[in-house]
Amino acid sequence: MSVYLDHAATSPLRPEARDAWLAASDVVGNASSIHAGGQAARRLLEQSREDLAGVLGCEPIEVVFTSGGTESVNLALKGLWWGRPEGTDAVVLPDGEHHATLDTVEWLAAHEGARVEAVRIDRVGRIAVDAFAAALPGGALATALVANNEIGTVNDAAALAAAALDAGVPLHLDAVAALGHVPVSFSAWRGTSALSVSAHKIGGPVGVGALVVARAAHPVALLHGGGQQRGLRSGTQDVPGAAAFAAAAVAAERERLAEGERLAALRARLVAGVQAAIPEVELLGDPVDRLPGNAHLLFRGASGETLLFLLDQAGISVSTGSACQAGVAEPSHVVLAMGRSDAEARSVLRLTLGRTSTTADVDAVVAALPGAYARAVASASR
Amino acid sequence: MSVYLDHAATSPLRPEARDAWLAASDVVGNASSIHAGGQAARRLLEQSREDLAGVLGCEPIEVVFTSGGTESVNLALKGLWWGRPEGTDAVVLPDGEHHATLDTVEWLAAHEGARVEAVRIDRVGRIAVDAFAAALPGGALATALVANNEIGTVNDAAALAAAALDAGVPLHLDAVAALGHVPVSFSAWRGTSALSVSAHKIGGPVGVGALVVARAAHPVALLHGGGQQRGLRSGTQDVPGAAAFAAAAVAAERERLAEGERLAALRARLVAGVQAAIPEVELLGDPVDRLPGNAHLLFRGASGETLLFLLDQAGISVSTGSACQAGVAEPSHVVLAMGRSDAEARSVLRLTLGRTSTTADVDAVVAALPGAYARAVASASR
Repeated sequence: MSVYLDHAATSPLRPEARDAWLAASDVVGNASSIHAGGQAARRLLEQSREDLAGVLGCEPIEVVFTSGGTESVNLALKGLWWGRPEGTDAVVLPDGEHHATLDTVEWLAAHEGARVEAVRIDRVGRIAVDAFAAALPGGALATALVANNEIGTVNDAAALAAAALDAGVPLHLDAVAALGHVPVSFSAWRGTSALSVSAHKIGGPVGVGALVVARAAHPVALLHGGGQQRGLRSGTQDVPGAAAFAAAAVAAERERLAEGERLAALRARLVAGVQAAIPEVELLGDPVDRLPGNAHLLFRGASGETLLFLLDQAGISVSTGSACQAGVAEPSHVVLAMGRSDAEARSVLRLTLGRTSTTADVDAVVAALPGAYARAVASASR
Repeated sequence: MSVYLDHAATSPLRPEARDAWLAASDVVGNASSIHAGGQAARRLLEQSREDLAGVLGCEPIEVVFTSGGTESVNLALKGLWWGRPEGTDAVVLPDGEHHATLDTVEWLAAHEGARVEAVRIDRVGRIAVDAFAAALPGGALATALVANNEIGTVNDAAALAAAALDAGVPLHLDAVAALGHVPVSFSAWRGTSALSVSAHKIGGPVGVGALVVARAAHPVALLHGGGQQRGLRSGTQDVPGAAAFAAAAVAAERERLAEGERLAALRARLVAGVQAAIPEVELLGDPVDRLPGNAHLLFRGASGETLLFLLDQAGISVSTGSACQAGVAEPSHVVLAMGRSDAEARSVLRLTLGRTSTTADVDAVVAALPGAYARAVASASR
C-alpha cells in the first residue's frame, strides 16, 4: 500500500496537464520562429498565457513563464533589487519565508550590499501586518508568502499589498503554496509588483513556473539572450510546459472550492483522528485561515525525522518541512520563528493532502501514527 | 505538404524522450524528499545524470541540470564572473557568438563593470585561435562556441581549451549547437570550466538543459534556494525533463556517426541542387568542418526574409538566422563578423536538416527555391 501525503512537496501530474503537454509536443516549431510551425507554437503559447492570466487575475502580457518557483522568486527579488529606487538599500523580509526567498535575500545581503529589515511572524505563523507596514518606508523592495508552505497559514495578502502601495515599495508575493488552494488575484492585490507561482504544486509538470510582473514594474532580467517575454526572461519558450501549466491551473481553479471543502474535511478527520489517539499532538498554524490540505502537527517528545522514517516503512509519505530543504536535519526555521523551541521545531510533521487523497489515506496514517509515535518517543528518551 | 528545415531552431521530440518523460512523470515524489517516492525520483534523476555524463564525457557530479541553453550560458558567464580571480576584469568574447552569450556579456559590461576583449572570427566564421590565445592573459573568463549555431562552422575547441588552460583563464564552451552532431567531450577539452548543452536541439524536450561544471570551478549560483545540485542551481529538480534529455542524448550519440553521414549527404544534395538552379548562391561557413545538417546559403540580391516568407507559403520552414532573434529584421551579426557586407548579411538563409529530414524534403526546397529567388530578386530591385 502506498499513501502519499506530501502534496505540498510535489503533486502528481494531472491528466489534463499530461494531455496538454503531449498535444503541444506535436507542434513542431520554435515559438520565436517566423514560419508557420513557429507561429502555431506561438499561438499555443499565447493561448496558454491568456488562460493562466485568467486564473491569476492579471493581464496576459504580465505573465512571464519561468522554469519554476525558485527561478520566479530569484527573478523577482534580484530583478527588483537591481532596478530598485535610487538611494534605497533595505529588503523587507518576513521570518519564515521559503528558502528560495531566504537564500536569495542572503545573497543580496552578502554579495550586493542589501540591508535586511526582518519582520516577525506571530504564534500561528502569520506575518504581522503592522510590523510589515512599519518596516516598509524607504525600502528597496519587500516580499511575503501568500500562504506559508510549511505551516499552511494564509497571510492577509490584501493588507500587505495595501501597505506596500501606501509606502511606495515594490512588493513580491510568493503564491507558490497558495495557488489552487486559496484565492489568488494579482489585480485584487493592487500594489504588488511581482507574484510567483509554480506548476508542479498544482498537478502541472515540474520545471515550469511563472512570475507575474506588473506592467509598471521593471525588474532587471536574470537570464539574458534572445529577448523573449518583454526581455525579462530570455530563452526558447517551453510551449508544452506552458500549455500543461495552464491546463493544470484552469482545472485546479475550476475545482478549487469543492476540492477545498473536501480536503478541509479530510484534514479535520485526520487531525481529530490523530488527536483522539495521541492527545498531546498539537496542530500548528492558524486552525481556520490555512491551506485546506495542510495538517502541520507537533509531536512533543518525538523526532519528526524518526516519525517520517517509521511512516515511510509503512508506505506512508510525509515530510518534516519544506522538501526543498529535506535531507538536511535542521529544525524548521518557520516553527522557530513562531516562537517555538528548538526541540519543538524538530518534532513536527507536515502532512499535505491533495487531488488524489482519499479517506483511506487519512485512515491509514491515523492508524499508523500511534505506534510510530510510541516508538519515536521511546527512541528519543533512550 | 510540410517540410521542416529548421532543426537548429528546435528539433521534434524523439519517441525515446517522450517515453522517458511519461515514465518519469508516473514516479510521484520530489527528488529532495526523504520518503520512498522521493528516493525513487532521486534514483531516476541520478541515473539520468549518469547517462548524460557518459555522453558528455564528464563525471555525473559535474552535470548541473538547468532550464535550457540560455540559463546554462547565463549561469556559466555570470557565475564565473562573480567568482573571477581577484584583479581581473576582462571577458574574452569572440565575435559571432549566440545572443545568450552576447547579451549576457553586454549586461556584465553595462551592469557589472566587465571589460570586453573581442576576438575576431575568420571568413568562414571560425574563431581565430591565435587571436583568442592572445586575448586571454589576465582575463576574468573566456567563452566560445564549439560550433556556430548560425553558420555551422565547427571551432577547434581542443585548441581553445588548451590556450585557456595555458593562460589560466576559466573557459566556458557553448556546445548547444554541437551536441549530437560533432564529438563533444568535456574531459578531452581539459581546461574547460563549464560547458552548456540544451535538450530540445537534439530531440529532447524544450525547457531542459545542462551546464557541465568542472569540479575545480566555482561559479556563483544564479538561482538561490534549496541548495540542490551542489548549491549551483536551486529549485525542485525536473526529473521527467532530465530523464527525457538523457534519453535523447544517448539516442543522438548512438546514431551520431551514421546520422552525420546521412545528413551530410542530404546537405550536399541540397547545396548542389540549389547551386545548379541558381549558380550565384554561395555556401557560407567552412565547407568541410561544419555541422552535417547545416546549409547556410547566401542569395545575393535577394532578401533572406522575403525568401523565408515565400518558402513558408510553399509549406517549407527555414530560418534567416538564430530563432532566438527571429522576428527582428536585423542583419546577421555572425555574417557581418565574417567580413560580409550589410546587404550580404540580410541575404542569407539557414536550412538545417535533422532526424526527420528526408530526400523528399531536400528535393522540395530545391524545387521551390529558384522561383522564390526570382521573385525575391524582383521585389528587391523594385
